[in-house]
Amino acid sequence: MYLAKRILMLLLVIVASCNPPKEVSTQPEKKAVKNVIFMVGDGMGLTQATAGLVANDFKLNLERVQYVGLSKTFSSDALITDSAAGATAFSIGEKSYNGAIGVMPDSTSRETILETAGAKGLATGLVVVCTITHATPGSFYAHQPSRNMHEEIASDMIDSPLNYFVGGGRKYFATRKDSSSILPALEEKGFSFVESLEAFKSSASEKIGYFIADGEPAPVAEGRGPILSDAVEAMLPKLASDPEGFFLVVEGSQIDWGGHSNDSDYITSEMIDFDNAIGKVLDFAAKDGNTLVVITADHETGGYSLTESEDPWKFEPKFTTGHHTATMVPVYAFGAGSEAFAGIYHNTEIYHKMMKAYGWK
Amino acid sequence: MYLAKRILMLLLVIVASCNPPKEVSTQPEKKAVKNVIFMVGDGMGLTQATAGLVANDFKLNLERVQYVGLSKTFSSDALITDSAAGATAFSIGEKSYNGAIGVMPDSTSRETILETAGAKGLATGLVVVCTITHATPGSFYAHQPSRNMHEEIASDMIDSPLNYFVGGGRKYFATRKDSSSILPALEEKGFSFVESLEAFKSSASEKIGYFIADGEPAPVAEGRGPILSDAVEAMLPKLASDPEGFFLVVEGSQIDWGGHSNDSDYITSEMIDFDNAIGKVLDFAAKDGNTLVVITADHETGGYSLTESEDPWKFEPKFTTGHHTATMVPVYAFGAGSEAFAGIYHNTEIYHKMMKAYGWK
Repeated sequence: MYLAKRILMLLLVIVASCNPPKEVSTQPEKKAVKNVIFMVGDGMGLTQATAGLVANDFKLNLERVQYVGLSKTFSSDALITDSAAGATAFSIGEKSYNGAIGVMPDSTSRETILETAGAKGLATGLVVVCTITHATPGSFYAHQPSRNMHEEIASDMIDSPLNYFVGGGRKYFATRKDSSSILPALEEKGFSFVESLEAFKSSASEKIGYFIADGEPAPVAEGRGPILSDAVEAMLPKLASDPEGFFLVVEGSQIDWGGHSNDSDYITSEMIDFDNAIGKVLDFAAKDGNTLVVITADHETGGYSLTESEDPWKFEPKFTTGHHTATMVPVYAFGAGSEAFAGIYHNTEIYHKMMKAYGWK
Repeated sequence: MYLAKRILMLLLVIVASCNPPKEVSTQPEKKAVKNVIFMVGDGMGLTQATAGLVANDFKLNLERVQYVGLSKTFSSDALITDSAAGATAFSIGEKSYNGAIGVMPDSTSRETILETAGAKGLATGLVVVCTITHATPGSFYAHQPSRNMHEEIASDMIDSPLNYFVGGGRKYFATRKDSSSILPALEEKGFSFVESLEAFKSSASEKIGYFIADGEPAPVAEGRGPILSDAVEAMLPKLASDPEGFFLVVEGSQIDWGGHSNDSDYITSEMIDFDNAIGKVLDFAAKDGNTLVVITADHETGGYSLTESEDPWKFEPKFTTGHHTATMVPVYAFGAGSEAFAGIYHNTEIYHKMMKAYGWK
């Protein structure tokens, strides 16, 4: 009977170990993702992406995304959003008025997803090719009633958990209207400021700022260089070294400016530059396996369209406005938890879906 | 040892029965869908859908879709497709030249998905609000070198497995240039022609045609009525009675014509009319559980954009062309197998994905 007992024990162990995987696999448990990389192509409507695809010899890294959704971009006070209300929808998950930076329609602050991430011990980063106080990046670390308050937005970085940033706008920090500088106050909070990506990479600081311009960085076609991709590449290892995970925002800031200028070459060159950064991010996420990548736009800019030209394989770009338009914009998702971004929803849902992906909702 | 042997046998049985479900559930077997409903909003770019959403008090049945993809609409000979090459991409899965009806770039025929469905014993149907010989419906049952050959396209229906159709264009069948009629030839093949939807519903024939106009049906805003939705509702029970399943094509044909006319009200009224048909189809698919619904466009028309107006909750519609544009268009999917339509791909993939959904590839 000893052998029988041993076999019975073995049988029980096998039955016990056999059942749980069955349950797990028929009703898969939603596992929280460790890292989220949120990428905004400012003004990157569907036509901007198509134009970039054509201009880039019919291929984009963007095409590697696994899921697509559509975002209803309306703000709290208009069919046509601006970048501040658009970014605030992403950062706090609430529709607010055009111009709002991380605040509700009544101008009260709400914690942004970047602030939540920082409070929970995750590393956080921002990489943009506009001033770091611009509407999109500003809405993730600042709370101000108006996007025009660049110095106030800059000051909000002092109490922000933000770890790393690369972007323009040094003047709003270092040479302010009253001749003051808030760099010492930021250094007191642990920030190191560097003058090159090499210095950024070699710094051991847990808070690093790299200003790539005093005001707005140049367009990529006018010599900005591949700083967007290079900064992403430099920042990812630092972020990934945080055992708690990270939250990174990357903005292709000037696609929008090409739209405002009704300049198709400006749009496509910035689109391709942003797509290069998308490539770096997707490579990281594919290798990591526990990173969610969400790529979207705040709105379309320019009423841009690709009309017939004499050459059937080229387009004649046309525009209807120097401002934004009300059309929905695509949401592209890749990696862990990306399936949640399928479907049609309000821009505010992007915040809620990212929070759920982290397991925070 | 007898007990030990029995336990050992039991153990082996348990181990054997324990493994397969694990495999099945970690790599779920793709089950073929029974029915596919393919809906084309001709010229329904993302802006057309957004305009319909705004015009319809910020709600569309389209919002119920589960997955979204993006379709690269380029034809074999141009960045900007026409509806014939666009529909041929959907019907045979090959890029062809602008004007091609179910033929390859060298003008040779390829079996369409509707013909494959018919050959396999599935019921087939077409519901459109243009002539039934127009580029989109024509590309599913005809093979002609040019979309302008309406009478030749009509003649191809004689040898088509098509079971049911509702659309315009009686003149291409009944009162042809040489005064002949091909209705007797179609009747010989089993077709019954009816003069109302009531007669359509009460007919027991397995092949029924209902011409809603001699030429092109009127715009919905000029008295066409809800024929698109009503025809879909009348046809679905007939199609669903086929135990082998069915393939149905539904076209919101005149969204495109609103774009060509640069007439925003024409676009939004046709968009809402098409969306009502989408509602009927989604209701059916949700109840059925074994039906895949794919909704897309062949291309965008008009370079349509929704720009600022004095009222922040209204848009000023603007256009850049009376023709089509090159922008990608969304693909919306719902129901069984709809997850395959996520991502970014060529318009031809829509054919291949539908074929795979049926289990035919």
